[in-house]
Amino acid sequence: MADITSQYIKWYKDATGTEIDWKDLLGKPEDLAFPQPQFIREFLHTPGFFRSAPVMPGSREVLSELNEAYELFIVSAAMEFPQSLIEKYEWLEEHFPFINWRQIVFCGSKKMISGDIMIDDHFRNLGNFNGEKLLFTATHNIYTHLNGYTRVNNWIEIKGLLMGVLHNQDPVIYSPLKA
Amino acid sequence: MADITSQYIKWYKDATGTEIDWKDLLGKPEDLAFPQPQFIREFLHTPGFFRSAPVMPGSREVLSELNEAYELFIVSAAMEFPQSLIEKYEWLEEHFPFINWRQIVFCGSKKMISGDIMIDDHFRNLGNFNGEKLLFTATHNIYTHLNGYTRVNNWIEIKGLLMGVLHNQDPVIYSPLKA
Repeated sequence: MADITSQYIKWYKDATGTEIDWKDLLGKPEDLAFPQPQFIREFLHTPGFFRSAPVMPGSREVLSELNEAYELFIVSAAMEFPQSLIEKYEWLEEHFPFINWRQIVFCGSKKMISGDIMIDDHFRNLGNFNGEKLLFTATHNIYTHLNGYTRVNNWIEIKGLLMGVLHNQDPVIYSPLKA
Repeated sequence: MADITSQYIKWYKDATGTEIDWKDLLGKPEDLAFPQPQFIREFLHTPGFFRSAPVMPGSREVLSELNEAYELFIVSAAMEFPQSLIEKYEWLEEHFPFINWRQIVFCGSKKMISGDIMIDDHFRNLGNFNGEKLLFTATHNIYTHLNGYTRVNNWIEIKGLLMGVLHNQDPVIYSPLKA
């Protein structure tokens, strides 16, 4: 939903003067991908970093549709950075006003979350999930290939998969076997 | 973990001058049990209310033991009152320092939480749960009797049930059939 990679690049340039090309981040963990990784760790604890993150293209429109068709929950790993709790809440309130507070979950680990489908860019969050696993492409996961995950590259693809399923009544379309 | 009823009674007295006996709260929803319920709603939105809540007797000691024996998560319905997010985080950090941030979940609804055992004082939180349901006695639930729940009246009882199970290898001890 939030384009954190773009936010890293913007804040890194503001802090260091160095403009990083997102292609140089491919395949690397975000906190190690930048030449001076200590800045990235600092951003995560800096007020305003999460609150001002840009919205990922298509996420608002597609989630608004999914919200009508599915029982939708927003589950965000926020607990490592406590100042992010209220920032993420306000960010959701501003950019995704159709999301009710009952639908929001802030956690550390996502091990206790159950559901039918989880969309996430981190293997560590999807790994324990009991339902379908949609791996949202991000710079850090782009070269990783694992069984049991369906890769989705953007929100339009998610719409195709999940609203397609609904309209076609064809659950095979999002099977991990097709990943 | 937090004794919210005592906190209501204390804050109500400070705000109105009226001392409420907890026995007068028995069997009533908390937000309707006080003569001027609008104060209760206001407390829930007032900075400091959650941060200064007293710790329930026995909760620290018993949860510290459970934390060694079980995979423990603290799941708190915090999202309705966004200012409570950081307050509840800091409250846990102060009073339950053995709880890691990875173990904390703040949510609105608890519908997406899965696990083996849930302890909660609200039927609405336990209702959708897929495991054993331990109903923690509170003024508002004291007269309610429903099938499928095991009532626990305090943390010492919880210790007896859950550490007893572990030591005796006797899962029947916490079966809802015995409730």
